Amino acid sequence: MGAVTAAEDRRWMAAALALAERTRGRTAPNPNVGCVLVAKDRVVGRGWTQPGGRPHAEAMALAAAGSAARGATAYVTLEPCAHVSPRGPACADLLVAAGVARVVVALGDPDPRTNGSGLARLRDAGILVSVGVCEADAVRSMAGFLTRRRLGRPFVTLKLATSLDGRIALPDGSSRWITGPEARAHAHLERSRHEAILVGRGTWETDKPGLDVRLPGLEDRSPLRIILSSRPHPSAPAGEGERGVVWIDSPDAVATLPADHILVEGGAGTAAAFLRADLVDRLLLYRAPILIGAGKAALGDLGIADLGTTHGRWRLHDARDLGTDRLEVYERTPCSPA
Amino acid sequence: MGAVTAAEDRRWMAAALALAERTRGRTAPNPNVGCVLVAKDRVVGRGWTQPGGRPHAEAMALAAAGSAARGATAYVTLEPCAHVSPRGPACADLLVAAGVARVVVALGDPDPRTNGSGLARLRDAGILVSVGVCEADAVRSMAGFLTRRRLGRPFVTLKLATSLDGRIALPDGSSRWITGPEARAHAHLERSRHEAILVGRGTWETDKPGLDVRLPGLEDRSPLRIILSSRPHPSAPAGEGERGVVWIDSPDAVATLPADHILVEGGAGTAAAFLRADLVDRLLLYRAPILIGAGKAALGDLGIADLGTTHGRWRLHDARDLGTDRLEVYERTPCSPA
Repeated sequence: MGAVTAAEDRRWMAAALALAERTRGRTAPNPNVGCVLVAKDRVVGRGWTQPGGRPHAEAMALAAAGSAARGATAYVTLEPCAHVSPRGPACADLLVAAGVARVVVALGDPDPRTNGSGLARLRDAGILVSVGVCEADAVRSMAGFLTRRRLGRPFVTLKLATSLDGRIALPDGSSRWITGPEARAHAHLERSRHEAILVGRGTWETDKPGLDVRLPGLEDRSPLRIILSSRPHPSAPAGEGERGVVWIDSPDAVATLPADHILVEGGAGTAAAFLRADLVDRLLLYRAPILIGAGKAALGDLGIADLGTTHGRWRLHDARDLGTDRLEVYERTPCSPA
Repeated sequence: MGAVTAAEDRRWMAAALALAERTRGRTAPNPNVGCVLVAKDRVVGRGWTQPGGRPHAEAMALAAAGSAARGATAYVTLEPCAHVSPRGPACADLLVAAGVARVVVALGDPDPRTNGSGLARLRDAGILVSVGVCEADAVRSMAGFLTRRRLGRPFVTLKLATSLDGRIALPDGSSRWITGPEARAHAHLERSRHEAILVGRGTWETDKPGLDVRLPGLEDRSPLRIILSSRPHPSAPAGEGERGVVWIDSPDAVATLPADHILVEGGAGTAAAFLRADLVDRLLLYRAPILIGAGKAALGDLGIADLGTTHGRWRLHDARDLGTDRLEVYERTPCSPA
């Protein structure tokens, strides 16, 4: 054990975090966790929370490793659970029974049924425990679960696709296409990582057929569709077009949805409603290198009376080129109101 | 000579190009040229076109080098001139007389009085001549001069300072501040590198006192101010406020101005008028990580009826962080109409 450096711990935890991404947006209300089991610098088991929330990552990795788990180190992105449920045993107990020698955890589990008792059970069994490896990355990885725990609502991402001058369409509403195929494919990948897509009623009535994941092999990942409409919604007609559709009348109602990750796709009024309600945690800004001039603005009225209040709320987290377009990912700053 | 590699040539030419930046925007109608004289891997003379266009870069560098120029290599960003003028001798003759052994040139001079005859005169004197080192950078460096030669008009840069959603002000016109002090200082530095700043009448009437260079030591670089107004302009009142101000009634009229670099600063209608006239060569986009929502758009109507026509006209050339803001520099693509 003494030969394992902090850099190696981070490297293996990064592998566990990568596994956790496989089911982001498909495990609610459970967190999407990743786990690798490592013995003598080799991976002997890998696991990630399965769609629907079970089996847990540790159970999957231990099943894959079999007897090779004995003496191994488990890298887990979240503290192993300490509670037995009808759907499965406690992961802390499974790790003890498998005889792992060390458990490295990115983040403690805020679930009151675990919240430190998973770590305690491991330590009581003589297992070496390290906590806090890649913690910030784990917070990002499990943003949906953690936001639900902390604020009682899903983690909300707002997607905008604009010209350099912030337009999302021509004056007549034409928006095909502002961004190119690479950016649009990336936006579909983002859809597959959310339990729900939300649009306003106007966008729904215009784009209804398009609100799914159109990527080869990922068609079955198409999320629940949520429509925001302040007017009473029509009674759902019997027909395939309305399956998996939920109407809500206020941004705050997202708290009631069976989703921990929501992608708000527009239009401008809906985006503004979420921003006014201070319900946007992350901004995906796809920008094409074009100028449109007169056209539809990305955002409706935010009610801003003083430019000073707009500063300091967003921080660039990531950026990448997508063909000739560019994606910028902004995150809410810690100091901005939550 | 044989020991000088192509990489070394590029390195010295980069130094000459850096010198040429010192007077960008202050040499019209002459090009801003840079020159370094190198002997035994040491710089023995440096020069750049002086404000107003004379002395030329080569004359300045040769004067600095004195007898050390004999046997040296001259790196010049533009072909040395072959014509004697009342304001000075031909640089090609000066280089021959100084006994330089080699001349490396980035770009041939399109001026019909030179256009190859400067190089011929050097070669006839037994000087080794290399042409085309860092040519693309030289084209950028002398964009004003070259655009005037090629298109009979100045090189036009459009500056926009926007929020992430493309707004330049609140609905009431408040725009102080969208970008932070670093971005604003950079914008003032850009002003100092243009012979003229151009704004629309509305911006002029609002921001008149501000259209200068407010950077320590560069106050005297404040460019000529050009006002675009389709209405008849008021007779200039006698007063300091109107010194160095020219009124024009159409974007095309910039061709008549004594300026090879023009910075268009707004407002939205003026920016759109230049874009509609296809007179923008470069776009400086300063972006603050804020969202404004309802407010003033960066650009007025561009008359675009089909999104397809907007694509492929702009290419990202450079980007940098300025505090928490970001500057993106876009250039007109070669394939877009000129």
